[in-house]
Amino acid sequence: MQVFITKLIKITSVVSVSLIFLLGLTSLGNAKTTVSAEVQYIFNTFSFLVCGFLVMWMAAGFCMLESGLVTTKSVSTIVAKNIGKFSIVAIVFYLGGYNLAYGIPEGGFIGSFTPWTLNNSIEQGYSGSADWYFQMLFVAATCSIVSGAVAERIKIWPFFIFSIILGGFIYPISMGWQWGGGWLASAGFSDFAGATLVHACGGAAAFAGVILVGARKGRFSPKGTVKTMEPFAASSIPLTALGTFILWMGWYGFNGGSQLALGTYEDANAMSKIFMNTHLAGAAGCVTAALVTRLIGGKTDVVMMLNGALAGLVSITAEPLAPSPMLAIGIGSAGSIIMYFGTQWLNKLRLDDVVGAIPVHMFAGIWGTLVVPLSNTDTNISTQLIGVVSVVTFSFVLSYIAFYALRQFIGLRISDEAERLGTDVAEIGVRAYAIRD
Amino acid sequence: MQVFITKLIKITSVVSVSLIFLLGLTSLGNAKTTVSAEVQYIFNTFSFLVCGFLVMWMAAGFCMLESGLVTTKSVSTIVAKNIGKFSIVAIVFYLGGYNLAYGIPEGGFIGSFTPWTLNNSIEQGYSGSADWYFQMLFVAATCSIVSGAVAERIKIWPFFIFSIILGGFIYPISMGWQWGGGWLASAGFSDFAGATLVHACGGAAAFAGVILVGARKGRFSPKGTVKTMEPFAASSIPLTALGTFILWMGWYGFNGGSQLALGTYEDANAMSKIFMNTHLAGAAGCVTAALVTRLIGGKTDVVMMLNGALAGLVSITAEPLAPSPMLAIGIGSAGSIIMYFGTQWLNKLRLDDVVGAIPVHMFAGIWGTLVVPLSNTDTNISTQLIGVVSVVTFSFVLSYIAFYALRQFIGLRISDEAERLGTDVAEIGVRAYAIRD
Amino acid sequence: MQVFITKLIKITSVVSVSLIFLLGLTSLGNAKTTVSAEVQYIFNTFSFLVCGFLVMWMAAGFCMLESGLVTTKSVSTIVAKNIGKFSIVAIVFYLGGYNLAYGIPEGGFIGSFTPWTLNNSIEQGYSGSADWYFQMLFVAATCSIVSGAVAERIKIWPFFIFSIILGGFIYPISMGWQWGGGWLASAGFSDFAGATLVHACGGAAAFAGVILVGARKGRFSPKGTVKTMEPFAASSIPLTALGTFILWMGWYGFNGGSQLALGTYEDANAMSKIFMNTHLAGAAGCVTAALVTRLIGGKTDVVMMLNGALAGLVSITAEPLAPSPMLAIGIGSAGSIIMYFGTQWLNKLRLDDVVGAIPVHMFAGIWGTLVVPLSNTDTNISTQLIGVVSVVTFSFVLSYIAFYALRQFIGLRISDEAERLGTDVAEIGVRAYAIRD
Repeated sequence: MQVFITKLIKITSVVSVSLIFLLGLTSLGNAKTTVSAEVQYIFNTFSFLVCGFLVMWMAAGFCMLESGLVTTKSVSTIVAKNIGKFSIVAIVFYLGGYNLAYGIPEGGFIGSFTPWTLNNSIEQGYSGSADWYFQMLFVAATCSIVSGAVAERIKIWPFFIFSIILGGFIYPISMGWQWGGGWLASAGFSDFAGATLVHACGGAAAFAGVILVGARKGRFSPKGTVKTMEPFAASSIPLTALGTFILWMGWYGFNGGSQLALGTYEDANAMSKIFMNTHLAGAAGCVTAALVTRLIGGKTDVVMMLNGALAGLVSITAEPLAPSPMLAIGIGSAGSIIMYFGTQWLNKLRLDDVVGAIPVHMFAGIWGTLVVPLSNTDTNISTQLIGVVSVVTFSFVLSYIAFYALRQFIGLRISDEAERLGTDVAEIGVRAYAIRD
Repeated sequence: MQVFITKLIKITSVVSVSLIFLLGLTSLGNAKTTVSAEVQYIFNTFSFLVCGFLVMWMAAGFCMLESGLVTTKSVSTIVAKNIGKFSIVAIVFYLGGYNLAYGIPEGGFIGSFTPWTLNNSIEQGYSGSADWYFQMLFVAATCSIVSGAVAERIKIWPFFIFSIILGGFIYPISMGWQWGGGWLASAGFSDFAGATLVHACGGAAAFAGVILVGARKGRFSPKGTVKTMEPFAASSIPLTALGTFILWMGWYGFNGGSQLALGTYEDANAMSKIFMNTHLAGAAGCVTAALVTRLIGGKTDVVMMLNGALAGLVSITAEPLAPSPMLAIGIGSAGSIIMYFGTQWLNKLRLDDVVGAIPVHMFAGIWGTLVVPLSNTDTNISTQLIGVVSVVTFSFVLSYIAFYALRQFIGLRISDEAERLGTDVAEIGVRAYAIRD
Repeated sequence: MQVFITKLIKITSVVSVSLIFLLGLTSLGNAKTTVSAEVQYIFNTFSFLVCGFLVMWMAAGFCMLESGLVTTKSVSTIVAKNIGKFSIVAIVFYLGGYNLAYGIPEGGFIGSFTPWTLNNSIEQGYSGSADWYFQMLFVAATCSIVSGAVAERIKIWPFFIFSIILGGFIYPISMGWQWGGGWLASAGFSDFAGATLVHACGGAAAFAGVILVGARKGRFSPKGTVKTMEPFAASSIPLTALGTFILWMGWYGFNGGSQLALGTYEDANAMSKIFMNTHLAGAAGCVTAALVTRLIGGKTDVVMMLNGALAGLVSITAEPLAPSPMLAIGIGSAGSIIMYFGTQWLNKLRLDDVVGAIPVHMFAGIWGTLVVPLSNTDTNISTQLIGVVSVVTFSFVLSYIAFYALRQFIGLRISDEAERLGTDVAEIGVRAYAIRD
C-alpha cells in the first residue's frame, strides 16, 4: 500500500511537472519566450494599431508635402485628391484588394477579389481587423505616391478611377506575390517593409502617369531648361516640411510595424533596431542632400534636403533590421544621391514630376531593394533583381494601360483654359488660400 | 514516520497544485483570460494614454480646421480661442467636472462639483490618472465644436466663460447620465464613444450660440442666398485638410479608447474592429460627399469632402464595435448625406455656422445614435430617441440660457467696427499672416 | 529502497517548489510585481518607442513654431535649419554623443566619444536601440531651442557646425553628469525629464548665440522700444499654434517616457500621473498668459498664450511625478509669468530672441528645477541650485566660445545685403511662400 502511494506520488509529481512544462510551452507560442500566447496576441495587435495610425498619418504627410510643392492654384485639388483617394482605397481594399493579395495560393500569382472576412484566433497571433487596418494603410501610401507626380494637370475623377485600379488591383496583386506568400516569396525575394512592393510600385505607376499626362505647360523651355521658380514656385515650404516630418514619423510605423509582431523579447528588439536604423537612414539622406546641393549648386536647397530625407527613408525600407547603424547611414546617404541625380535625369527627359515622387520612391526604392544582400545573407542580388524588375514592370505596364484607357475614353488632362485658371478654380471651385496681410 | 512523511508530501503536493491553480485564477481578472491582473492593468492604462494623446491631438485638428475655414482676419482669434478653451476646460474638469459626471449616484441625475482625487487599484483595472486624462480630453473635444460655429463675431472672453459652463457643467452632467451610470444608463441607452454625449451635445451648444450671436454681417444676402466666396472665403484649404486628417487620426483613439480596456484577447479584438469600422465610416463619408457634390453641384467640393469624412466619423461613434464593416460604410455614407442637406438647411434658416459644426457633429451624431439598434441588439430605437432628445435638449436649453445671460451682462458680439477690422486686430492685436511672396 | 525513493521525492518536491519560487522571483524583476521580466521588457521597450516618436514629433513642432514666428523672408531657412540639425545630431549622437554621456564613470565628469554599441539583455529591462532612439531625440530637442532664437541672421552652415558642437559635446557631457550617473547625480541633484539638462542647457546656448550674433537690423529703435509688428510680424500664427500643439503632444512622451519604464503597476501609475500633471501645467501656463496679457496689455496676446503653455510645460519637466495636480497647476502658472517678464527683460537688454526661446526654455526651466524640493522631499534647494548653475554655466560658456570661434573663423552673421533680401533668397534660394489669392 505504502509502496503504491509512494509510486502514485512519484507518478503524480512527474505528470504534474510535465503538465506544467507542457502548459508553459503551449502558452509560450514558441519555446524561447516566457510570454503567454494571449499577452503576445495583445502586444502584436496593439503594435499593429499603433504602427497603423502612424502609417495613416503618412497620408496627411503626403497631402501636406504635395500641397506645399504644387503651385498655389492647384492646392485645393491636391487636397481633394489626397483625401478622396485615401478614402476610396480603404473601401476597395475591403471589398476585394485584401483577398486578392492574401488569398493567393502558396507560390502563386493571384488571389481572389472577394470581400475581406474577419479571422481572429490566438494561433494567428493578432487580430484580423488590426492586420487589415495596417495593410490597408500601405495601399493608401502606394496611391499617394502617384498623386503628387501628376499634379496640376490631371482631372480629378480619372485620377480617382486610377486609384481604384492601382489600390484595388495592381498593388494587391504584385504585393501578394511576396507578402501573400506567392511566387516571389517562394523564389527567396526579400522586401521587409515595401521599398519595392510599395514605393517602387507606386513610383512606377507615377512614371506611367507622368509620361501619359504630359508636362505642365511652360515647365520646360524650348532649350530644355527647367523653370523651378515662378510660375512653378512651390506654394508653401513650411507645409512641405510639415509633410516630410509627418512622413518621417509615420515611417517608424511603416517599417517597425512590418516586423508584424511585438510580443517577444526578439520582436521588441527587432522593432527597436528598425526604429533606429530608419531614423539614421533618413537623417543621412537629409544631410547628404544638404552637402550635395551646397557643394554643387552653391545654395543649400531645402526641398532637396526634404526629399533627401525621404529618399533615405525609402532606401532603408527594404531591409531596416539587418544593417548595422553605420550601414543604415550609408544606405540612406546613397539613396539621397540617387534621388538627386534621378531628379536631374527626369528633368533632362522633360518628364514633369511635380514633387519628385519618382526619384524619391522608385529610384531610391530600387536601390534599397538591391542593396539588401549586403546585410541580409539570406538574400542574393539576382533574386532581388528579379523581384524589382517584375514588380516595377508589372506596375508600370498595367498603370500605363490604365492611364491610356482613361485618356482615350474619359480624358486624362484638364483643358488648356482650366490649366491657365488652375485646377482649384476649374475642378474644385474653391481657391486654396484667401490670405490678406 | 515514513507514512507521515509520504502523507505530508501528498498533502503538500495537492495544496500547492491547488494554490497554483487558485493563484492562476485570481491573476486572470476573469476566468476567460490568461493575462494576469497586473499585465491587464498596464495594457488598459497604456491604451488610455495612447488613445488619450490621439484625442488630445484632435484639439490641434479642430484648431487647424477652424483656422483654415474662417476668413483671414479671424485666424489669430480662432487660435487663441482653441488653445485657451483647451487649457481652461482641463483645469475646470479637474476642479469639479469629473466628479460632477462620475460621482453621480447609480441611476441618478448629478454628481458633485468637487476636485478629482486619485484612485489607483489593481481591481479598478487602470490608473485613475490615465482615466482622468482620457476623459478630460473628451471635454475639450465637446467645447471645440462650439468655437468654429460662432467664429468671427463672438468676443473671446465671453466665449471662454461659456467654455467653463459647457465643459465644467453642461457636458459633465449629461455625460454622467450615461457614462457615470446615471438614469440614461439605467434606461438602457447606448452611446459607445459619444456621438450624442459629445458630438450632439457640443453641436446643440453651438446651435444655441449661432442663434444668439447672429450671422456675420453680409453673410446672407437680402434675397436669402449665401456668400461662400469673397469676402467669406476660407483662408486656407490645406490647413483645413490638415485639421481633418488630424481629427481622423484622433478618432481612432476617441472610439478605440472608449473600449476602456486592452488587456484581454476580447478587448484587443474589439479595439481593432473599432479602428477598422471607424476608418471605413470616415472613408465612406468622404467618398459620398465627393459624389454628391459632383453630381449635384458640378464641382467636387473639397470642403464638403472633408466635412463628409468628419460626418462619417461622427456617425459611427455611437456604435463602432457592433456593425459589420459593410454596415459601417453605410452608416458613414448616410451621415455624410445628412450633413450635406443639413448644411443647406441651416443656410436656408440663415444660421451662420462658419465651419459646419452643427451638421457635422449634431446632425450626424443624432443619426449615428438612432441607428445603433440596427447592429446592437441590446438597444432599441425608443430608448435611443429618449437619450438623444434629453441630452440635446439639455445642452441646447442650458447653452441658450448661458449665452443669453452672457449677452445681457457682458455682451457676446464684437462691435461693428471690430467686425469690419476683424477680430484679430480688434481683440488679439496680432495679424494671423504676414506672408509676402 | 523505499526510504530512498521517498526521500528522493521529498527532496525533488522541495527543490522543485524552491525552483518555482526562485523562477517566480527572478521573472518578477522585483518582488512586488507579478509581471514576468520578458513582458516588462516588452512594455518598457515599447514605451520608449511610443514616447520616442512623440519626442521626435516635437522636432516638427519646433519647426512649425519657428516657421510661424519668423518673418516671411526667413521661413525656408528655418525649415532647412530644423530638418538639417535634426538629422545631423542623430548621426553625431550615434558616433559619439551617447557614450560621452552614458559612458561616464560613476560620479565622474565625462565619458568617451566612441560609437554607440548595441546592448540588449533581459536584465537591462529594455532594448538598447530603443533607449538610444529615445535619448537621441532629446538631443534634437536641445538643439531646436537654439535655432529659433538666432533665426533670420545666422548663416546656415555655421549653425550646423554649432549643432554638432552642442548636440555632440556640450549637451551630452553635462547631461551625463546627471543621467549618466556622473557627479551631479552623486550630489543628489534631481531633474526628472530635463528642465535643466535639456531646456535650460539649450536656452543658455541660445543666450550665448543671441549675444554674439546680434539683433536683427531695426528690431530695436534708438529709443529702446521693440518693433513687433511690421517688418517683424510673425509670418503665420496658425503654424505657430500648430507647432505649440505638436510640442504639447510630444511633451507627454518627453516627460512620460522619462519614467524609463512601463512594465509594472507602479510604472503605469507613474506614467499616467506624469501625463496628467504635464497637461495641467501646460494648461495653467496658457490660461495665465491669457489673463496677464489681457489685464496688462488690454489685448489677449495669442503668441504669449502659446509661449505660456510651453513655459508651463517646461516648468513641470523637472518633476512631473511628485506634485499634486494642484501644485502642477501652480508651477505651470508661475512658469508662465516668469516667461512673460523674462521676455520683457530680454527686450530691455536689446537681446533679440526671435521666438522667445530663452524665456520659455531657460527661465522656466530654471524655475521648474528650483521648485522641485517643494514636492520631492529627497531633494533640497542648494543641490538643485548647484545643478542649475553648473549646467547653465557650462552650456553658456562653451556655447559662447564655440559661437565666438565660428564668428572669427567662418563668420556667423549673414551680410547686410543678405539680411535685406532675407535668408531664404540669400542662402537657400527658395522663397517660402508663393501664395496668390
